[in-house]
Amino acid sequence: MGTGPIRTALKVDFGRPAQKQPYFHNRWHPDIPAVGKIAPGEIVKVECVDCSGGQIKNDDCADDARDCDLTQPHYLSGPFEIKGADPGDVLVVEIQDVQPFEDRPWGFTAVFDRHNGGGFLDDHYPRAAKGELTATKAIWDFEGIFCSSRHIPHVRFPGLIHPGIMGCAPSAGVLAEWNRRESELVAASAPGRVVALLPQPENVHAGSASEDLKARIGREGARTIPGRPEHGGNCDIKNLSRGSKTYLPVHVPGAKFSVGDLHFSQGDGEISFCGAIEMAGIITFKFGLMKGGIQDLDMKSPIFCPGPVEPHFSPSRMLTFEGFSVDETGRQHYMDVTVAYRQTCLRVIEYLRRFGYSGEQIYLLLSCAPVQGHVAGIVDIPNACTTMGIPMDIFDFDISPGAPIPELDMGSCAYTSDRR
Amino acid sequence: MGTGPIRTALKVDFGRPAQKQPYFHNRWHPDIPAVGKIAPGEIVKVECVDCSGGQIKNDDCADDARDCDLTQPHYLSGPFEIKGADPGDVLVVEIQDVQPFEDRPWGFTAVFDRHNGGGFLDDHYPRAAKGELTATKAIWDFEGIFCSSRHIPHVRFPGLIHPGIMGCAPSAGVLAEWNRRESELVAASAPGRVVALLPQPENVHAGSASEDLKARIGREGARTIPGRPEHGGNCDIKNLSRGSKTYLPVHVPGAKFSVGDLHFSQGDGEISFCGAIEMAGIITFKFGLMKGGIQDLDMKSPIFCPGPVEPHFSPSRMLTFEGFSVDETGRQHYMDVTVAYRQTCLRVIEYLRRFGYSGEQIYLLLSCAPVQGHVAGIVDIPNACTTMGIPMDIFDFDISPGAPIPELDMGSCAYTSDRR
Amino acid sequence: MGTGPIRTALKVDFGRPAQKQPYFHNRWHPDIPAVGKIAPGEIVKVECVDCSGGQIKNDDCADDARDCDLTQPHYLSGPFEIKGADPGDVLVVEIQDVQPFEDRPWGFTAVFDRHNGGGFLDDHYPRAAKGELTATKAIWDFEGIFCSSRHIPHVRFPGLIHPGIMGCAPSAGVLAEWNRRESELVAASAPGRVVALLPQPENVHAGSASEDLKARIGREGARTIPGRPEHGGNCDIKNLSRGSKTYLPVHVPGAKFSVGDLHFSQGDGEISFCGAIEMAGIITFKFGLMKGGIQDLDMKSPIFCPGPVEPHFSPSRMLTFEGFSVDETGRQHYMDVTVAYRQTCLRVIEYLRRFGYSGEQIYLLLSCAPVQGHVAGIVDIPNACTTMGIPMDIFDFDISPGAPIPELDMGSCAYTSDRR
Amino acid sequence: MGTGPIRTALKVDFGRPAQKQPYFHNRWHPDIPAVGKIAPGEIVKVECVDCSGGQIKNDDCADDARDCDLTQPHYLSGPFEIKGADPGDVLVVEIQDVQPFEDRPWGFTAVFDRHNGGGFLDDHYPRAAKGELTATKAIWDFEGIFCSSRHIPHVRFPGLIHPGIMGCAPSAGVLAEWNRRESELVAASAPGRVVALLPQPENVHAGSASEDLKARIGREGARTIPGRPEHGGNCDIKNLSRGSKTYLPVHVPGAKFSVGDLHFSQGDGEISFCGAIEMAGIITFKFGLMKGGIQDLDMKSPIFCPGPVEPHFSPSRMLTFEGFSVDETGRQHYMDVTVAYRQTCLRVIEYLRRFGYSGEQIYLLLSCAPVQGHVAGIVDIPNACTTMGIPMDIFDFDISPGAPIPELDMGSCAYTSDRR
Repeated sequence: MGTGPIRTALKVDFGRPAQKQPYFHNRWHPDIPAVGKIAPGEIVKVECVDCSGGQIKNDDCADDARDCDLTQPHYLSGPFEIKGADPGDVLVVEIQDVQPFEDRPWGFTAVFDRHNGGGFLDDHYPRAAKGELTATKAIWDFEGIFCSSRHIPHVRFPGLIHPGIMGCAPSAGVLAEWNRRESELVAASAPGRVVALLPQPENVHAGSASEDLKARIGREGARTIPGRPEHGGNCDIKNLSRGSKTYLPVHVPGAKFSVGDLHFSQGDGEISFCGAIEMAGIITFKFGLMKGGIQDLDMKSPIFCPGPVEPHFSPSRMLTFEGFSVDETGRQHYMDVTVAYRQTCLRVIEYLRRFGYSGEQIYLLLSCAPVQGHVAGIVDIPNACTTMGIPMDIFDFDISPGAPIPELDMGSCAYTSDRR
Repeated sequence: MGTGPIRTALKVDFGRPAQKQPYFHNRWHPDIPAVGKIAPGEIVKVECVDCSGGQIKNDDCADDARDCDLTQPHYLSGPFEIKGADPGDVLVVEIQDVQPFEDRPWGFTAVFDRHNGGGFLDDHYPRAAKGELTATKAIWDFEGIFCSSRHIPHVRFPGLIHPGIMGCAPSAGVLAEWNRRESELVAASAPGRVVALLPQPENVHAGSASEDLKARIGREGARTIPGRPEHGGNCDIKNLSRGSKTYLPVHVPGAKFSVGDLHFSQGDGEISFCGAIEMAGIITFKFGLMKGGIQDLDMKSPIFCPGPVEPHFSPSRMLTFEGFSVDETGRQHYMDVTVAYRQTCLRVIEYLRRFGYSGEQIYLLLSCAPVQGHVAGIVDIPNACTTMGIPMDIFDFDISPGAPIPELDMGSCAYTSDRR
Repeated sequence: MGTGPIRTALKVDFGRPAQKQPYFHNRWHPDIPAVGKIAPGEIVKVECVDCSGGQIKNDDCADDARDCDLTQPHYLSGPFEIKGADPGDVLVVEIQDVQPFEDRPWGFTAVFDRHNGGGFLDDHYPRAAKGELTATKAIWDFEGIFCSSRHIPHVRFPGLIHPGIMGCAPSAGVLAEWNRRESELVAASAPGRVVALLPQPENVHAGSASEDLKARIGREGARTIPGRPEHGGNCDIKNLSRGSKTYLPVHVPGAKFSVGDLHFSQGDGEISFCGAIEMAGIITFKFGLMKGGIQDLDMKSPIFCPGPVEPHFSPSRMLTFEGFSVDETGRQHYMDVTVAYRQTCLRVIEYLRRFGYSGEQIYLLLSCAPVQGHVAGIVDIPNACTTMGIPMDIFDFDISPGAPIPELDMGSCAYTSDRR
Repeated sequence: MGTGPIRTALKVDFGRPAQKQPYFHNRWHPDIPAVGKIAPGEIVKVECVDCSGGQIKNDDCADDARDCDLTQPHYLSGPFEIKGADPGDVLVVEIQDVQPFEDRPWGFTAVFDRHNGGGFLDDHYPRAAKGELTATKAIWDFEGIFCSSRHIPHVRFPGLIHPGIMGCAPSAGVLAEWNRRESELVAASAPGRVVALLPQPENVHAGSASEDLKARIGREGARTIPGRPEHGGNCDIKNLSRGSKTYLPVHVPGAKFSVGDLHFSQGDGEISFCGAIEMAGIITFKFGLMKGGIQDLDMKSPIFCPGPVEPHFSPSRMLTFEGFSVDETGRQHYMDVTVAYRQTCLRVIEYLRRFGYSGEQIYLLLSCAPVQGHVAGIVDIPNACTTMGIPMDIFDFDISPGAPIPELDMGSCAYTSDRR
């Protein structure tokens, strides 16, 4: 008569490499075999590894971040067949909870070398000797709803745990469109500049696909790095957390829903690329279906409502910085929000550095703390304007403009072992 | 012993054209004469006209918006000399209140023609016959803290009243830098394309400047349209409202602080250019000074804290849309947040159009309602991702994805008289 | 075509005593003549004097508070006839705005002697010599949305301006019921103990009533001091502020709506009796009618929704105290929330006194600052439990339990002139 | 180098009766043996059974609630010795997380008979035939952060999980004081009326105490039903949830901290006595010590700060009801907040019954949903005024006053089997 425990639809085995576990995949392709079925209305748990598949360790050295193999991420859990889902439907994904594993109460934030993934500020951080690769990282310990890091002292904040990636499989047509347009971008770009990641057979993981199918998926499958309008994917939207409801377009029979790249917390932009607090964890879902929903909602990209329990800061406790589309060399760009947001980030770094943090520490912090990045003005030529709000309550000292600067030991983030 | 009424440091005369009133100016220049002095710690009121100087009327025809003379905006109140302010200081501007005039309880939102200012979606709205100009507008009536419009029915929301523009005068050096970099952008752009607004002698207003000085200011003075990193200016940040505190760099003796472009409400991005609810009004300030603050704060651009009384929506009542840097022709852009945010706006329009609103009405609405525009992901090449959250509580019907579509008369926004 | 200014339905004359102005009244009675008519849907402004009718001055001496004549309050504006309202209807009162008068940017909080009104903690504060009356007060200066007091330094907070009193006139039957039950309480109480204020001819103000009618209203009219379930009245609910909507039962033809007792800010409980920041001001209303609403809603007492712009503090910044129904002599009361809430207040006073404030200052502060008073547990015999949350952000120093106690000059509240 | 899993300081065995498990106790007494030691700074998990020790089942019959043995609750986990704690210190209890057991995703709310515990509205609900006992209950299923009940359809809300009880052991002196004052209350009350629960040897559980000690604890130990000012205890404060920090006075060496009575959610007042959503669960703590803190903070009762992740409703979505100290017979009480709050509850029941719920269902709902109970006015003789705010967003239909009443099947709460 009563209610039983919740079914775990996918269980991770931390004793085996992610590559060897048949219920993961790291490319988007309609033909990756489903790992199970879920009925609309059923509540299920799905376990996930971290985005790197365990490449980054809980230690004080960033060599693993420097050497991280980027042909592997992201290891996604799935795809799941949703019973009754057809192309044209909308899959309603309610995230009822997201939690770290009890015995893995930690996560990491890393900055990769500009020649290995880079990041939003890779002209500035980290700086390697010529011809060498470098990286930094910070390990975060979870204390219930909070996290703190031995690598960035005097900061603590509640997590807004969320999956960086959710999406249904592309149809063959959608996949072809992705490959077309991203190939055209690559073709139109300067040789040697990495502007998009085209299909990559190396390290492809296609779940339980046969060798033939796997090889084809390696040739055709879309990389999971970017989000894409047709299905969402790697959106890195920090608000897709507990209690949120996301409306995803369905492109293939059974929807083939996948999820991964869990974040304990992330700032708007996830600026350091591997910039959220990456973690393994367990996500609790309930699915719904809107038959024919794509047409009914005139939907081209996912829609969502955040949950009701986001960390709650007073607006008057958000110290906020502005940036414009004039870059650090003094060059005027035309309405470029990307440039403006980068300038905004640099303004915050300049401000917080005064308290004794290194630029690298702040870069890591802005990637993963619950900072608010807003588009402010986008029509006053030639200057776009963006803002970044920093919740002052996450620091255990007063960072407001009038406050005296205390003498605090800010320690150090993790660097690579060859740092001189 | 008691407290007296607050001094009004600048009083507007609605009986005279803005051009004839000596305490306004519409260019940034260090030599515009100060209109009065204000001491740090003193509380003062400053009155402002609307950004257009009264060109737009409270009626149901958008001809005035179509014909709006863009060499005139913005009429700023000031500049004020702040006693004791020196270059290198930081001026702390507390906005203690902003209110419309009692006898002018209305404002306007307009979309200009792409050949007269344009807007963020000017490839889409409004559409004119070839070779003609067009425009749309909506008039908003203020009901205390709320506003509603006969041109966009079934919507009502509380204002977050703020000045679109605040800033201290540039020094000669700062001004020269502005002119250099914006001229270089113009020089590097395709002929005929308007990418920046260089100094413009026509309709220059330099307060009580002599004719000679006014002519020089016309040749040298920076336009007020864009915000600029060195002083803020036209930032259009909706959170600079009641109770906010803004830290502005001082570049000239006495700071020469100006303010204008009051908005009853604005959405993130102010996407239709004349897109906030533009109004005349009264702003109450208290100023503070941080001597030598620019160096102490390592400040390159303004910093602020919002006030504690922003309209308060549950996060779970924010229906949120996503956009990516793939444009409407299917072209893949590289990490272009501007493209992503435009796509986000288009997704909202497609969604809300289902309820019977015209695209023009929604464009106007997204410009001025308290919508939240966030940078979500900015590092996953090649796709930047942005979001726009719409507070569902501002509609008097249910806009959630599952809700039935009611039959409502959505009326019409104001069009130009020649619309066929 | 456009919108005109808002009609002021009642204008106050500060040059005349409140007693002489015919659009006020200070008793509840069905026969007080209406001062004007308002149509549903119309937006109107109504001006109000402060609760005392100007007895308390903006100075540093509490003699006026000590000598305050309590037969006079509250001077209510009205009653207004609402067109079309009939007994059985529900009057929907939207408060679109509340503001102080521009030239009266101040208010007061007072503690009266226990023999002249008293207060929730009148066994403790203020303490007079035997046989003498005493009082304290604090004057608050309004700085836009904020207020601060020279009598309680180092505190500043945003107002949540609201009328302490709103209600429709009682019918003859309702009035008779009030008089019956309050007389019975008086009759059942110890002689000399003031447990209720029965009709009081002295200083009765019945608007423009004839002398005969006025005399009758003096004999029959209910005092405005208590709120009452049948119509609301002096509820002192701090959330009935800008943007709120209140549903009031209608008992007489035309509703006869009155309003007064404006507060710039108030804490839950308004513990010092004259405990909010009392002010004169202007309130903007829009009325609606629900015909037959009392029966439809099964309504016995008013219902309301607060507005969307309340001051916004993070829950984690609310330092919260507990109290139980064990009084300060160690006596156990049975489930007495009143005792519990008093204990809660005393706990806050003990805590804040450590920073150098006097008990009197804190008593005044808790009355008027936006403190949150909650019923926590009410079923675990014999102890009711209540809490009071203090927003830490209203202090300009750190009041958290671990923080060091700074040396600050806390000045003094206003006392009576005979204080030795 | 990295961080290990968190230590579980107390593990519950669901295979054995609570009475047989040596790490529980159900009386407050200084001599109950400690079950373990915890160091300040250490993070630990503590498991708890539900308040009744498993007496209430997940089924559709309320016989178990009717027959619940009230000499047993509450089974508290502990006491724990906190290393270094001495009398006079303050124990700082940070709740880092609270979660249900994975395999017990449900809880219950019950209304007991007035002759077996009763509740705040026991003059009204439930109604038994003469001489018989009755009860009602509702089972709540947890869906991640949300819960819903088959017994109260069309409602769903996020939990604010918290322990109803936390406290340090009383010293012998404190315990004697409790027994003195509660005995005096009993002695002064009418015979037969249950006004307090004095020490009760029946079903005493004193952990691993020897038989002799247990007998003494049975004679002396204070019941856990009421909270008490000296140590907190059964405060039932809904905000003591994730991320909260509570400051508890220490009365005995080692503090002897205990916890229990976990609630998934509770409304202010917990009005139905067994009124929260009672559950078994796991709580994660981190303790701190303020040596000599009682004197430093001038502390007589606990202090706390809530956590930053409370469910977040817009104030304008809180439908709010008022109640006054006039009871349902029309009798006027003097400033009685208890009466006022009861009236407030009755007003809500009358309102919500219109939608088809039974009074019993609403009584259960108001006990456990996140309703806000405020003390509004407490000084206007003779009427105290309180409010209760209902978050409208927890219903899946529109409960606002103007909305049409939909035809919905509201089912039934669980009744006893003998209900005719």
